[in-house]
Amino acid sequence: MKENNNHTVTNTPGTPSPFRRGGRGVRPLVWAFLLLLTIPAEAQQAAKATWIWYPGDYEIWLSNQMQNRRTERGTFFPPFWRLDSHYPLIDFHQDFELKAPEEVELRAEGQYNVKLDGKLLSGSPTRLTVPAGKHRLNIKVYNQANVPTVFVRGKTIGTDGSWLVTYEDKEWIDASGKVSDQSGTTWLTAGSWNFNEAQALPSAFKLRTEPQRAASVTRTAGGGLLVDFGRETFGYVRLHGLQGKGQTTLYFGESKEEALSTEGCETLERLDVNQPQKGEKLTSLSKAFRFVNIQPEAGVTLDSVSMLYEYAPVVERGRFRCSDDQLNKIWDVAAYTMHLNTREFFIDGIKRDRWVWSGDAYQSYLMNYYLYFDTPTVNRTTFALRGKDPVTSHVNTIMDYTFYWFIGIYDAYQYTGDKTVVTQLYPRMQSLMDYCLARRNKDGLMEGLAGDWVFIDWADGLSKKGEVSFEQLLLCRSLESMALCANLVNDQAGAQKYQQLATDLKAKIFATYWNQNKGALVHSCVNGQPTDNVTRYANMFAIFFDYLNNEQEQQVKKSVLLNPQVAKITTPYMRFYELEALCALGEQPYVLKEMKSYWGGMLNEGATSFWEEYDPAKKGTEHLSMYGRPFGKSLCHAWGASPIYLLGKYYLGVKPLSAGYATYEVVPNLGGLQWMEGAVPTPQGDISVRATPKQLKVKGAVGTGTLRFASKTKPSCKGAKIQAKGNGQYELQLEKGREYVVTYQAV
Amino acid sequence: MKENNNHTVTNTPGTPSPFRRGGRGVRPLVWAFLLLLTIPAEAQQAAKATWIWYPGDYEIWLSNQMQNRRTERGTFFPPFWRLDSHYPLIDFHQDFELKAPEEVELRAEGQYNVKLDGKLLSGSPTRLTVPAGKHRLNIKVYNQANVPTVFVRGKTIGTDGSWLVTYEDKEWIDASGKVSDQSGTTWLTAGSWNFNEAQALPSAFKLRTEPQRAASVTRTAGGGLLVDFGRETFGYVRLHGLQGKGQTTLYFGESKEEALSTEGCETLERLDVNQPQKGEKLTSLSKAFRFVNIQPEAGVTLDSVSMLYEYAPVVERGRFRCSDDQLNKIWDVAAYTMHLNTREFFIDGIKRDRWVWSGDAYQSYLMNYYLYFDTPTVNRTTFALRGKDPVTSHVNTIMDYTFYWFIGIYDAYQYTGDKTVVTQLYPRMQSLMDYCLARRNKDGLMEGLAGDWVFIDWADGLSKKGEVSFEQLLLCRSLESMALCANLVNDQAGAQKYQQLATDLKAKIFATYWNQNKGALVHSCVNGQPTDNVTRYANMFAIFFDYLNNEQEQQVKKSVLLNPQVAKITTPYMRFYELEALCALGEQPYVLKEMKSYWGGMLNEGATSFWEEYDPAKKGTEHLSMYGRPFGKSLCHAWGASPIYLLGKYYLGVKPLSAGYATYEVVPNLGGLQWMEGAVPTPQGDISVRATPKQLKVKGAVGTGTLRFASKTKPSCKGAKIQAKGNGQYELQLEKGREYVVTYQAV
Repeated sequence: MKENNNHTVTNTPGTPSPFRRGGRGVRPLVWAFLLLLTIPAEAQQAAKATWIWYPGDYEIWLSNQMQNRRTERGTFFPPFWRLDSHYPLIDFHQDFELKAPEEVELRAEGQYNVKLDGKLLSGSPTRLTVPAGKHRLNIKVYNQANVPTVFVRGKTIGTDGSWLVTYEDKEWIDASGKVSDQSGTTWLTAGSWNFNEAQALPSAFKLRTEPQRAASVTRTAGGGLLVDFGRETFGYVRLHGLQGKGQTTLYFGESKEEALSTEGCETLERLDVNQPQKGEKLTSLSKAFRFVNIQPEAGVTLDSVSMLYEYAPVVERGRFRCSDDQLNKIWDVAAYTMHLNTREFFIDGIKRDRWVWSGDAYQSYLMNYYLYFDTPTVNRTTFALRGKDPVTSHVNTIMDYTFYWFIGIYDAYQYTGDKTVVTQLYPRMQSLMDYCLARRNKDGLMEGLAGDWVFIDWADGLSKKGEVSFEQLLLCRSLESMALCANLVNDQAGAQKYQQLATDLKAKIFATYWNQNKGALVHSCVNGQPTDNVTRYANMFAIFFDYLNNEQEQQVKKSVLLNPQVAKITTPYMRFYELEALCALGEQPYVLKEMKSYWGGMLNEGATSFWEEYDPAKKGTEHLSMYGRPFGKSLCHAWGASPIYLLGKYYLGVKPLSAGYATYEVVPNLGGLQWMEGAVPTPQGDISVRATPKQLKVKGAVGTGTLRFASKTKPSCKGAKIQAKGNGQYELQLEKGREYVVTYQAV
Repeated sequence: MKENNNHTVTNTPGTPSPFRRGGRGVRPLVWAFLLLLTIPAEAQQAAKATWIWYPGDYEIWLSNQMQNRRTERGTFFPPFWRLDSHYPLIDFHQDFELKAPEEVELRAEGQYNVKLDGKLLSGSPTRLTVPAGKHRLNIKVYNQANVPTVFVRGKTIGTDGSWLVTYEDKEWIDASGKVSDQSGTTWLTAGSWNFNEAQALPSAFKLRTEPQRAASVTRTAGGGLLVDFGRETFGYVRLHGLQGKGQTTLYFGESKEEALSTEGCETLERLDVNQPQKGEKLTSLSKAFRFVNIQPEAGVTLDSVSMLYEYAPVVERGRFRCSDDQLNKIWDVAAYTMHLNTREFFIDGIKRDRWVWSGDAYQSYLMNYYLYFDTPTVNRTTFALRGKDPVTSHVNTIMDYTFYWFIGIYDAYQYTGDKTVVTQLYPRMQSLMDYCLARRNKDGLMEGLAGDWVFIDWADGLSKKGEVSFEQLLLCRSLESMALCANLVNDQAGAQKYQQLATDLKAKIFATYWNQNKGALVHSCVNGQPTDNVTRYANMFAIFFDYLNNEQEQQVKKSVLLNPQVAKITTPYMRFYELEALCALGEQPYVLKEMKSYWGGMLNEGATSFWEEYDPAKKGTEHLSMYGRPFGKSLCHAWGASPIYLLGKYYLGVKPLSAGYATYEVVPNLGGLQWMEGAVPTPQGDISVRATPKQLKVKGAVGTGTLRFASKTKPSCKGAKIQAKGNGQYELQLEKGREYVVTYQAV
């Protein structure tokens, strides 16, 4: 395979607009090392096969690697929650019925043995012949340092997600040599990703890299260099023509100010140089930066600087273009922000933590459904966040983050239609929910106990005391997700239990927090008494969770969402939900203005990716500080990329109505734009939409869609029948693969 | 340090009696690699320090290494239960109050950072100065492949078991940079062993080895060699003067027959030889054998063979000698059997599994208290067996083995007086007991569910159906152990709960299983009805658990223990308890004869270590088979070593009455011997006993003892007052460090 895109153009920061698209969009989903392989002739006739493992184990192992790469000013800075490990010993098996004997190739990462029909084969065979007929192949692998994985490929046999795995086969023998019945063993279907060749070892996984040049370089006093890569980026810095002996320090900056602040920058690396002859050197860790301030000690010189850009080769399938150039730029910078934060997992921000945070990841999942539709990254992130039993803490220690984890799993099923992960994770969903339910207080509500972080949002003065309504709402939605997932795995008793809990809790939420005078849910109960503090959080979630009746919705819109007296939100994180709530209420024109003002505001400040926090009231370098540190803020945070989601779901108006887009709706809403066009990815192809006030053009590659729109005049569509729904509302049924062009008159 | 013992004599198999003692007994408890170190001058003024870790984590990791070394005829053969892993990320801390600033040396296995008073120091310092005053030092270590460990040593500061550790410090910061209160974090005291130097890395641990010569070598056809090492042994085989190119296969045998059976021997190794010049080669894995049958392919020649004996340098502190030479030999072979099976952990047998089995280990613990008093090996084994939460299976998948695990923990406290491990393990005791209690049936009894192995013993035709009385007895004792341990950790509610459960269960056991006509507990209930099958198991345990009244004891003795109609026990494993029960009933003379006949029987068959199973009715090579395989039986099984325990506890008569021998009793019982003498180790020194029918000589280095004996005449002891207890029974209070010589007349 060969790269067929033009990334030297795309990624050369010297090119005036760093937001040119196309390059990222067509990157094939293969890893760098696969490029080195040639496919042997025999493999052409072989079954598809992929490396497999115990579900979640590779994801946990890989996330440990990634999350322990954080450094703070050069010092190791690991997470503060529990990290789990893979099971070091795993049994893999599959049953076959073969028409003819078949030679299979067999690889494992770890020490292993192989059983054919329960009989141990000698040694650790790399090839074996499975005879014709019904047979069972077992492979048992031990690996303490890396994850036990296997790869088997024959003409029809191939390891894949249908193989069964267990960490305890319970296969003992009695004194006569008779084998136990293994009736107590739980088998799960194997986990896998895209390691589809024998040589593509999962333990050797690395993100892809490619060389990039600097946009500008300035010599500084003492032989140093200040390098600008033109926009926020990520990778290894490469020093060329390096010579001499001594230390060279690289101070990284998302801003020029940060790179120049040798005492205040968040990340740095000290390189020991000992090169009598001119040579090249790479930094040891990949880092986020736009600027790098390179300061060699006396005696060390260097000629020039470039970088190895490091990235996940995800495919950009979602598209959006419209008549507003600023909005197009917002979409592009959002997509780039999302791309930088889509790595081994969906991470929070590329500069500082690079940890997997559930609340951040939840938003990435939603944006992903409108940009990459990269389900493996959703699944990896979900497994990594959950870790293993027993539960000793909330996900990331944060109560709300536990709840987002539940909700994300159901969303994943709704968008992808794949219940494999639900089946694999359901026991861990149950145990995490048991943990939550056991932490309810005497009133059946969640309140922060010792070791619980009630986060909600970064906002000055936000109360976390008592029983916060926002947390109860998220628990309620989590219980609904549990009920839905219980049905997917045929746990009827569970489904009933969780649904009842959700119904009871929802009633309690409204009885406790709804304040009719204020037309809003209040923020919390303290000492058993509802406060009269109104915040946006619970109210906006209540809208898109569809927990409010029409009257309540209108009250909330007026008294909370559009009420400037209620404390403003200053993070793109919660602006995501605030604007989603307004979109759900049909306020697209208002939200469009808000997007242009808020995300446009960051662009006006020179943002080349979107930030962790943005308060338009702040000025200059005030924008760079957070956590009490001058450059504490991350200027490239996944949760800043929400316009991707809002524009795809609420302007192009595409969303699944049943799992995996078997049915879906398209409700275009121009929100004041002259035209817009774009595509939304689905499991089986894209849904493309183009809209003007006079014409709607829609084509879906999947399922059965419903186009809904309003028109002042009677609309028409060649060869299709539009249904009038009354009040100027119309519907058109969309068949798979067919393009519909509707002539209408927008209201 | 220098080896001061004479192991070349002891371990040279050419020496006629392989049972000469002395060598093993004085081996210092240091590891080979420490011999290479010189102690730097500054260390002379340094605090004691040892490498520390999260309790249980090193033990689990090390047991994974050991248990995955099993091979069956050269093929990898791992356990069938779940293997756990260490936590890859651990925070260690300690608070100090220093009179003067102190420079400390700091090492960690893994990537790490250091905080002093909550402030992150730059990089990963290996030295730092802690200022005078109150300070806290935190070290956070990440290690995926090996266990995170740390070693800190200054003048007064040193890592030890008082440091606190956690796998989730929950130290987050809010948007202002303020640190959380960590109130939800559980800290345990650190685990450690004897890695007392900075260079003694726990991950580098290896058992000790030393060269040994073969006893005899016979050339076989085709240039091969049949080597006899004179007795059962363990280690690496060393081929000398090896030359040529080709494979050389080593067939190991505990018996000559096994080594010669190239198709039937249980273990073998194939060595690839490619040596143009004569050279040496070691086998890759250490193995058990007495005989090795070495068969080089044509083109490969060798001159001679020796071995590297591999062993744990435990110190043999218990002693026993008596007027019966056969009994002395039994004791010696038992001690040697125990020594071979005391390795990284107490294992079952050295040939085959080399796994940690709870039922086997439980007996090793008891023998250990009368031989090595090596508490670290007890603790390591206990942690390794338990693994981690969640509980998904019984220990080793065996119901009875779960119960032995509980009972062993309380025993350890009783013998050692150290409640550290109880404190560290109590949460895992609770969760394992929860698992058991949740598996009781509607009648509150344990019965094998899917995946449960009801083992009891290797015995033909032994029923495992229904509710087996033996299992209920063990559960009852486990509940009593839980109650006792709950008190040790100040869990009063738990203590009460577990005691009540035990009381209720004991009543139920007698109501259900006691058959007055049979004068015995019956074996089981099937379909809710007690069977009339009487076996020895529950009855003998009921005796030394002290669950029977006097009348019942006498009934059981007659109708079960001394009744030849009740199926005989054919494993040394259960003979252990059978003979213990008889000793508890004062049947020492009978048990002495049984020991001589049963263990003496194995010696007569040529045993050089004691076996997994011994049925005196079998003949010749019948003794070698088990599990349907001709050489399936292990001829060196820890559970064969019980005479050590019986002779120490019921003949020398020494046992603790309160934790750690604070109080203890000595009840010598010659059982027909003319004389006996010996020593029993305790945490603080030995208790030595010498007895003849006319004189008792006792000296204890610990606590307060009570010597109890019967005498036909009025006994006397110079300088001490003997109390008459009536019926010819006497007692003498024993003070620490003083020798008592009692003149009496044995009954």
